[in-house]
Amino acid sequence: MTIIKAALLGYGTVGQGVYTALKTHRQQLKKLLGAEVEIAGVLIKDPNKKRDIDPDILITTEFEDILNIPGLQVIFEAIVGEEPGFTYLNRAIEKGIQVITANKVMFARYGKVLLQKGQKYGVSVGYEATTAGGVPIIRTLKQLLQVNKINRIQGIVNGTSNFILTEMRSRGISFDEALQLAQRNGYAEEDPTSDISGKDAFCKTMILSELAFGKQPIWSDVELEGITSITEEQVQQALQLNLRYKHVADIYQENGTIKASVKPILVGESHPLFSVDGVDNAITVEASLLGRFTLTGPGAGKLPTASAMVEDLADIFTVKKRELQPSI
Amino acid sequence: MTIIKAALLGYGTVGQGVYTALKTHRQQLKKLLGAEVEIAGVLIKDPNKKRDIDPDILITTEFEDILNIPGLQVIFEAIVGEEPGFTYLNRAIEKGIQVITANKVMFARYGKVLLQKGQKYGVSVGYEATTAGGVPIIRTLKQLLQVNKINRIQGIVNGTSNFILTEMRSRGISFDEALQLAQRNGYAEEDPTSDISGKDAFCKTMILSELAFGKQPIWSDVELEGITSITEEQVQQALQLNLRYKHVADIYQENGTIKASVKPILVGESHPLFSVDGVDNAITVEASLLGRFTLTGPGAGKLPTASAMVEDLADIFTVKKRELQPSI
Repeated sequence: MTIIKAALLGYGTVGQGVYTALKTHRQQLKKLLGAEVEIAGVLIKDPNKKRDIDPDILITTEFEDILNIPGLQVIFEAIVGEEPGFTYLNRAIEKGIQVITANKVMFARYGKVLLQKGQKYGVSVGYEATTAGGVPIIRTLKQLLQVNKINRIQGIVNGTSNFILTEMRSRGISFDEALQLAQRNGYAEEDPTSDISGKDAFCKTMILSELAFGKQPIWSDVELEGITSITEEQVQQALQLNLRYKHVADIYQENGTIKASVKPILVGESHPLFSVDGVDNAITVEASLLGRFTLTGPGAGKLPTASAMVEDLADIFTVKKRELQPSI
Repeated sequence: MTIIKAALLGYGTVGQGVYTALKTHRQQLKKLLGAEVEIAGVLIKDPNKKRDIDPDILITTEFEDILNIPGLQVIFEAIVGEEPGFTYLNRAIEKGIQVITANKVMFARYGKVLLQKGQKYGVSVGYEATTAGGVPIIRTLKQLLQVNKINRIQGIVNGTSNFILTEMRSRGISFDEALQLAQRNGYAEEDPTSDISGKDAFCKTMILSELAFGKQPIWSDVELEGITSITEEQVQQALQLNLRYKHVADIYQENGTIKASVKPILVGESHPLFSVDGVDNAITVEASLLGRFTLTGPGAGKLPTASAMVEDLADIFTVKKRELQPSI
């Protein structure tokens, strides 16, 4: 049986999810790829933390150790922040290693560079997990773009904000109370800034823009607003009118320029994002032929995000497998 | 420039949509496939009908004429009913011609046979357009199945029924009035039986079952009910309780047996199909890793369905193009 040697960069929620998914879905992958996916190494930050990793897997704090794994074919990157993720993936690509990332902050900034570099080195760069967790928006857009032109994208791409707005509405509680509830439920980080300020949604919006329109707006031109200033009273007043606050990323092209905003808006019942509640993400795409359709699903979470990364793996290696077979 | 020679079987709404889509998206396809898609022939039923087809395209009532087009590479089938669609596609596959179908009645019955035959002859069989029009559920499921197991599928897969139920609720009108409204808007056929009896949804359900679970339930075991017996009063009573009637296809596996039903059910606000209104279709999938997600979009219509068929074309020929290139 052929072996596909893989390494994980980072062993937080997402890294652990990939580890679990590869284990629990081993048979499925074997059947699909005709190969066994073996996790050969895991890059970690704190060597003293206890982790439930098989003893024969290399655990290291040094990226060099990962790069030096003989025959390493694919890296799953689940680190947070632009660096060192970008540098690591650059080096991996230069070595001909396939890369799959969940790192939206890094990818919003450097996605294009990595994709171009990947092309140069004949390496695939999977990034489904960067945007809307388990919702398969990246591959759906890629597929659509084969034939359709994309006119507009509107999306709820931050589950934490959506959960908070949902709870404020349905329970009649304040922003602070809803945030605490999100934290108690594990839907918000201890430091929730990136989610509630809209920065997380901003990164995903830039990634979607790059894919759908081939470019991003100038970042400072994007109207960016989080949900922190929305009051209990506003939410209840809106509710009286059957309107709901949703934190929505909006991207479209006007005279060749990309217009984008990431901010709370009021939507009525006929809006496709009206009923998207809780930690769900949803993305509405307006396409030239297909019309308007919406994808809704888990925007985050260990297994949904891992599923996205493992699907990237499946894509990359089924294509490689197909290329090695005689053509029909 | 290489030419991909194509033929259309049937020139109703869907056939015309494909014709239009191939024309309007010619540049996009050229860029993608490195080839020009040329419609070389159209199979029609009534030779006396006036049609807006380029004069240099072969128009014929004889399938033999289509089969004999020199170098024909792909057939788009948009005929209604099991036959002659099945026989035609069989013969096309035997000649090594790629086939793409929108014919759900035929594909529900013979999909497996055609796919197996296609495999034997090295021919692809595209069937995205058979189910939920422009909603890309077939390719999304295929993609998911690479890694996930599907636990359950629930869907609104008939736009006509959904439109009627929506209008009954929102306007407080009777079934008959809503049906007439649907007919006036072009959302229901003159003979609406297949839509309102649930038969159309049944076919799509069988296609989804085959794909998701590798088999279909015994047809006579499926609980099948249309929307004709739902009264104005029932709809309004439900509305008082904030419940809505939705015509829902439901498929899951229990002890290795497929359980399926296609019938009106009452859903509450937390159900993912609660807000799917009008002619939209929506499909909720519960997958082992990904969790629960929903695809919503235009369930029918000329261009959405055509988009699905042209995407099938793009898939088939990009894979072929890739196979002809040196592997990376």
